[in-house]
Amino acid sequence: MGFQQVKTPAYQQRMDEAVRFFTSADKILILSHLSPDGDTLGSAFALCRALLKMGKKARVICSDPFPEKFKYMYDGLEMEEFSPAAIVSVDIASRNLFGRKLEPFTDKVDFCIDHHPSNTGYAARTLLNPEAAATCEIILELVKLLGVEINNFIADCIYTGLATDTGCFRYSNTTPQTLRCAAEMMERGAQAAKISKRMFETLSRPRLEMERQVLNSLEYYYEGKVALVYVTREMCEKTGVPDSDLEGIPSIPVRIEGVLAGITIKEKSPEIYKISLRTNSGVNASEICSNFGGGGHAAAAGCQIEGSLAQVREKILEATGKALDGLK
Amino acid sequence: MGFQQVKTPAYQQRMDEAVRFFTSADKILILSHLSPDGDTLGSAFALCRALLKMGKKARVICSDPFPEKFKYMYDGLEMEEFSPAAIVSVDIASRNLFGRKLEPFTDKVDFCIDHHPSNTGYAARTLLNPEAAATCEIILELVKLLGVEINNFIADCIYTGLATDTGCFRYSNTTPQTLRCAAEMMERGAQAAKISKRMFETLSRPRLEMERQVLNSLEYYYEGKVALVYVTREMCEKTGVPDSDLEGIPSIPVRIEGVLAGITIKEKSPEIYKISLRTNSGVNASEICSNFGGGGHAAAAGCQIEGSLAQVREKILEATGKALDGLK
Repeated sequence: MGFQQVKTPAYQQRMDEAVRFFTSADKILILSHLSPDGDTLGSAFALCRALLKMGKKARVICSDPFPEKFKYMYDGLEMEEFSPAAIVSVDIASRNLFGRKLEPFTDKVDFCIDHHPSNTGYAARTLLNPEAAATCEIILELVKLLGVEINNFIADCIYTGLATDTGCFRYSNTTPQTLRCAAEMMERGAQAAKISKRMFETLSRPRLEMERQVLNSLEYYYEGKVALVYVTREMCEKTGVPDSDLEGIPSIPVRIEGVLAGITIKEKSPEIYKISLRTNSGVNASEICSNFGGGGHAAAAGCQIEGSLAQVREKILEATGKALDGLK
Repeated sequence: MGFQQVKTPAYQQRMDEAVRFFTSADKILILSHLSPDGDTLGSAFALCRALLKMGKKARVICSDPFPEKFKYMYDGLEMEEFSPAAIVSVDIASRNLFGRKLEPFTDKVDFCIDHHPSNTGYAARTLLNPEAAATCEIILELVKLLGVEINNFIADCIYTGLATDTGCFRYSNTTPQTLRCAAEMMERGAQAAKISKRMFETLSRPRLEMERQVLNSLEYYYEGKVALVYVTREMCEKTGVPDSDLEGIPSIPVRIEGVLAGITIKEKSPEIYKISLRTNSGVNASEICSNFGGGGHAAAAGCQIEGSLAQVREKILEATGKALDGLK
């Protein structure tokens, strides 16, 4: 049914290489990407824990601090300091996701493990499976081939990556393989319900206050086919919500029944606005944003427009309206 | 790891009986419960489609109309009228979930298929698996034993029940078996991402407006350990949101970080209020509600309190405060 994962001979060969590499390597530094999410950290800590179980030295680093909500991944993990003899990156598609702290390593990555089709191939060797919903799927395969038994800590890490990169198995990147990996992780002791609650249900007070204000700013245009919300600097300051906690806000307007395009206008600085556009089938968000030098995917794109708020709103609404006209 | 589903010999025997029953039965009327959800309808239409494929006559009925959002389950399904020779209920735990239209059948159910531990045993025979996250898990097992090939329509129905009864695989009732069934349904053609979007992301305009008003009513008590929201009759009238579209509202306050108890006060009629209480670990919602003649589960319970809004709020806050004191 189109779900059979085609593991090319090249991929299999690269996986064999990875197994040999990790079997012989030691003092392994594992790099995770900027603004770390559940998949980069789940991959990194699952691999780190597996390597430690193999009796090796391993450590995870990131240019940003590890977020508190992922604490269960690294709590009690003893990662001693060492001068690295092998550099590995996980879930990092390109050099610009390394960040300042990892800058010294951008040209020194021995092995990159990733699932992003856009991976730029910056590493000496890259184990890439673009069919995997999460890098954690590849890590699970690797860890098993390394002969490490999956304990509950590793299972928690892998489950987190699978769940967070698929919106808890809701997005179209979810495959039967993703669900089967998740089932296996539950059997290995992953606290699935607890992790899901933490990742998908819990909201900070500032975030909830921001959602309230965003809903209060909601406007409809084009007979309800377009919904528009604002995120002003005043709202950010008043609620105290950090930028890292604004994820998902642009998805709010497009969730409304009958809405084909959901626009979020975020004030970057006076007269400079960042537009996030989310669309339902038939409306190409990327094309609309390309009018303003932006881009992205068909269902999710962004651009930046300068001017007064009224001007910016008029411009993006006009471009969106034209795209809707094209549907008729 | 405690996930192995114990299929008792009694269950296996009852499943064998069910296979014999459906193999020989014809003109089968399938009953689904009041306020139909994804599991009762998914179970009913999956079974109906399987029986039709076996060359039998079968029909699904419900005391309430089938909601539009489940249209893909029954669209194009030809269910001709017949005088039923066999009555089957799916996902119906007790007689009070039959509703007016199904009343003539309450004492005439030949086979009940269900996963609710609270099933009252009203049917002549009951195929009950309380370990199943959804009745659809049991239906899938049955349909396969009946030798029916799962096509994409049946797969859509089963997937819907699995996803909706587990909050898209987030709740603690999700087992590895649930995830494996979901994987198999994807392979059989279930449009998982499309169904998830429809079930979990799309909100009606009245519902979104209600969420906005609910957030605007939010109050914190006991240093932020208790969050309280209101659903007044005025809010329901103004937004035009039907009661059937209020599901999930009581879960909003308890999602807030640091909140141990989330209270929703819903006005039923003047001076009569329905309380929905949701709690995080350690606070027993059922015990709190039992003070007012209500009950439920440890994490989700309800009760009814009479009086002015101010009196009702004081009473439920006082009882909740006492439960919080008990934590110290």
